[in-house]
Amino acid sequence: MDSPHILPVILSGGGGTRLWPLSSPERPKQFLALDGDATLLQQAVARVTGPGFAPPLLVANERHATLIEDQLRAVGCEGARLLLEPEPRNTAAAIALAAVAAPDGATPLLVIPSDHVIRDPAAFRAAVRTALPLAEKGWLCTFGIAPDRPETGYGWIRLGEALGDGARAAAAFVEKPPRDAAERMLTDRAHVWNSGIFLFRAAPLLAALERDAPAVLAAARAAVANAAGTGGRILPERTAFARAPSISFDHAVMEKADRVAVVPVDMGWSDVGSWDALYDIGTPDEDGNVAEGAVLALDTAGCLIRSVAGRRVTVIGLTDLIVVAGERDVLVLPRGQAQQVRAIADRLERS
Amino acid sequence: MDSPHILPVILSGGGGTRLWPLSSPERPKQFLALDGDATLLQQAVARVTGPGFAPPLLVANERHATLIEDQLRAVGCEGARLLLEPEPRNTAAAIALAAVAAPDGATPLLVIPSDHVIRDPAAFRAAVRTALPLAEKGWLCTFGIAPDRPETGYGWIRLGEALGDGARAAAAFVEKPPRDAAERMLTDRAHVWNSGIFLFRAAPLLAALERDAPAVLAAARAAVANAAGTGGRILPERTAFARAPSISFDHAVMEKADRVAVVPVDMGWSDVGSWDALYDIGTPDEDGNVAEGAVLALDTAGCLIRSVAGRRVTVIGLTDLIVVAGERDVLVLPRGQAQQVRAIADRLERS
Repeated sequence: MDSPHILPVILSGGGGTRLWPLSSPERPKQFLALDGDATLLQQAVARVTGPGFAPPLLVANERHATLIEDQLRAVGCEGARLLLEPEPRNTAAAIALAAVAAPDGATPLLVIPSDHVIRDPAAFRAAVRTALPLAEKGWLCTFGIAPDRPETGYGWIRLGEALGDGARAAAAFVEKPPRDAAERMLTDRAHVWNSGIFLFRAAPLLAALERDAPAVLAAARAAVANAAGTGGRILPERTAFARAPSISFDHAVMEKADRVAVVPVDMGWSDVGSWDALYDIGTPDEDGNVAEGAVLALDTAGCLIRSVAGRRVTVIGLTDLIVVAGERDVLVLPRGQAQQVRAIADRLERS
Repeated sequence: MDSPHILPVILSGGGGTRLWPLSSPERPKQFLALDGDATLLQQAVARVTGPGFAPPLLVANERHATLIEDQLRAVGCEGARLLLEPEPRNTAAAIALAAVAAPDGATPLLVIPSDHVIRDPAAFRAAVRTALPLAEKGWLCTFGIAPDRPETGYGWIRLGEALGDGARAAAAFVEKPPRDAAERMLTDRAHVWNSGIFLFRAAPLLAALERDAPAVLAAARAAVANAAGTGGRILPERTAFARAPSISFDHAVMEKADRVAVVPVDMGWSDVGSWDALYDIGTPDEDGNVAEGAVLALDTAGCLIRSVAGRRVTVIGLTDLIVVAGERDVLVLPRGQAQQVRAIADRLERS
């Protein structure tokens, strides 16, 4: 990666309900080691560490500040700064904070979620190199994942004209399509999933925010102008930030902006958005089970089984189930139904 | 119940592996409240409390002495004595201890396990009244349960000649029959299950032990003769008791004795010998689930779901499974396979 140095912006605002009961508001999934020894946050940091990258800027809930600092320290990450949101206001406000806090308008910001898995970080970095010239010309770049199922929970992007090697213009955004539309997009080879990873210079992003989401930008500017903070912690001012409309970055900016590029990339990506997704990225044993923790599985096949430290799970004669034993809660359901977990977690956490 | 007063002998030697992970060697199932507020031991005590019954004699593992005293106190049971085995030596030795410790040879001893459920205690007491005249004439009486399945884990008794109203001679004992024999006995209406409940006077029982299990009786006599103890606790002497062969009462005595009577009784009996049995005696909700503890069941039918205090279980879309969340361990398996639990519990407790 050549200069200018890219500023990684790592978004850590996830609420932690879809992998309940392992994740929780106190410890959303980015802080969990789901597929190895490193947490998803630590994997995200590693992915944007090295030549060409400045130390990262993390946008996170202020309640997680110490947790993040501990996890960064454990992997030797130095010089990171934390932009600590007094309350979650969705991704448009989070990215606006980062753009406002960027050192200058020329800096390319590489926005990445903290809670994804990317099996092939070299492919990811190659895609960033592909996007960088476009970003330097003022394009808002996103990264597209080749779909392998008619997923109705994601945003999809229709690919437009070629923009040089490996990049395409974004012809349209399709957020959370109905099933039949997803089926069509899956087969027409003209669509990719929106990975939620972005590369752009701060200046054109601020201009896009100014035009399409001025209330978000104004709130972010006022919150940063009156920020407190010591060391690597920046604390945007609460009252100003609370005025930011809660809206996703895709809705607020990407769907409306003019010069949006997509770099399709095959990098073993997963948003680990459900227990089903965690099974899919796992390495099954010879019986097709993905097990982690103290697990005894007899006559059992095709199951995802997890236990946290101090819990022990014994299963006999099961097929295609998800069994999770957290500190307090136990969850059992068939694979393929994990999208129901979020609503249940919300309900239980409220009760 | 008329005089002479019956001495209830409550056997509390069970090891606590079949309802793992709820039961454990520290707290076998007789000490658990499995089907209501009272523990199985407390239910057993209530069953033999009232006119005609002396305070009970409990034969138990010495490690459970305080637990038993606490549970007796909680239900206002007074005057009970505890015969505390230094180690478990099976039911022949336990019953021999009680017979040796009985106040005199004329006393009818009503031997009952501490870990059964009997839904209709009035029917049970009526059966005891039926057996009492035979016991007073020197018969060894047992109580037979009409079989409803070809159970290969139980002892079966072939019914012989009638011995007055409601009693039959025991023509033969068939311990743990093969499946085809169990199928035949289920349909021939000439067999009952051996409930493990007995009524006899101490004298003929001691004579039967003398003849058929002299080593057991000698060990029990020596252990009681040299017993220590204070208050309601009797501590048979360890070395003497350890010489008792470990043999079941059925094998040692009942299968060989001459004058054995059976009183068939329909009293809602279960030995709660497995999670499947616990489902069978439970009261299912409208979806056929038997749930206890903090349980949330969605789109779920035919399941047994239990959680101990402090654990919460959420299940979605399950059918005919057993889900148990203990303090440390979680167990999930299909209904109908619960007989596998004992071996697994033994294995895990050893590891």
